[in-house]
Amino acid sequence: MKIVSAKKILAGNDKIAQANRELFDKEGIFVLNLLGSPGAGKTSLLEALLPRLGKSLPVAVIEGDLATSQDAERVAALEVPVVQVNTEGACHLDAAMVASAAEALDLPRGGILFIENVGNLVCPAGFKLGEHLRLVVLSVTEGDDKVAKYPPMFRKTQAVALNKVDLAGALDFDEAKVEADLKRLLPGGRLFRVSARTGAGVEELESWLREERACRFGNASG
Amino acid sequence: MKIVSAKKILAGNDKIAQANRELFDKEGIFVLNLLGSPGAGKTSLLEALLPRLGKSLPVAVIEGDLATSQDAERVAALEVPVVQVNTEGACHLDAAMVASAAEALDLPRGGILFIENVGNLVCPAGFKLGEHLRLVVLSVTEGDDKVAKYPPMFRKTQAVALNKVDLAGALDFDEAKVEADLKRLLPGGRLFRVSARTGAGVEELESWLREERACRFGNASG
Repeated sequence: MKIVSAKKILAGNDKIAQANRELFDKEGIFVLNLLGSPGAGKTSLLEALLPRLGKSLPVAVIEGDLATSQDAERVAALEVPVVQVNTEGACHLDAAMVASAAEALDLPRGGILFIENVGNLVCPAGFKLGEHLRLVVLSVTEGDDKVAKYPPMFRKTQAVALNKVDLAGALDFDEAKVEADLKRLLPGGRLFRVSARTGAGVEELESWLREERACRFGNASG
Repeated sequence: MKIVSAKKILAGNDKIAQANRELFDKEGIFVLNLLGSPGAGKTSLLEALLPRLGKSLPVAVIEGDLATSQDAERVAALEVPVVQVNTEGACHLDAAMVASAAEALDLPRGGILFIENVGNLVCPAGFKLGEHLRLVVLSVTEGDDKVAKYPPMFRKTQAVALNKVDLAGALDFDEAKVEADLKRLLPGGRLFRVSARTGAGVEELESWLREERACRFGNASG
């Protein structure tokens, strides 16, 4: 009988994540790990971003879900290459799942690959996938206490997209509280106010993604 | 070096959950495991239910969170006995955490104990705590695709509280889809439409909880 400890699993994951990252760097692919609670609006935000980015850059998506291919179908409807990973109960994507998905995917060389993680504000924080940056989608409908209550997720990201801001007026949502909690956990982190549904703020997020990509790979593809 | 496999951990958890259940049964305490995504409205629903139930029944709460005692403070403000469990990174409560919390709690003998799990639509599904029933809180702002996308959680509950129905008008939310998916995964399961904020539907949920408690322990405490 072989038993593998959690520490060894994480070390093994890091090694595969590193190999993923080397592949992405070699192919000039800027990779985002998109995280957030179930229903935060990760797929909706992709639906808002992909047509804009896709005008001048190759884009592709890896979708992670426990079950169904509903999210991949929404991305495929935009004629963007997509692979669905069903985690069969696992609460997060890991680097090996991403490596398999990348093999099956038409890689967006010189462009941007989005990896949409399983909807979960806890477990995916611990697993590197080979991404360059993380973006956590937090919706105002989840309440203004979530940054403080889920610190591992918000400590390990580079940016937060505060989504569904069009609904903020109907809620008792204290944005200053979110900002203060973020400043404490993630000094220097970026906060974008967006509505995937109305399109508000999506242009700013798009510009940031283009800049971050260009910082790493230049503007050759633009 | 000792290594404990996941299977053994679950078997060990089941054993402690069974002991919790025996304690709760002995003391005539009806126990609910309250589950759902971050921000689904679990604590808000407790804030709506506790003052109603507390009029004629002892009530108490165990709060599970990664960090902070914000939820416990909200319950304590209602003058309801509460213990906060900080899971230190764990993505779910387990039976041992509940056993420790129960020791620290002024137990609501003859009444109802709510155990609010960590906000997570995946991991808590696998861990019995010793509860009599599970109630999953799903908010309309999370979207109408969540039942199909997170089947383990919805297969293992007895009821679903569809929360924030006051916001449904502002969203493209297909309630029939949720109902159909639930019927498939959870035949005979109950679906309550509620708004913790406006109070809509809370009375029906309260009645159901009273009935389920009375079925097990009779009306002596009423």
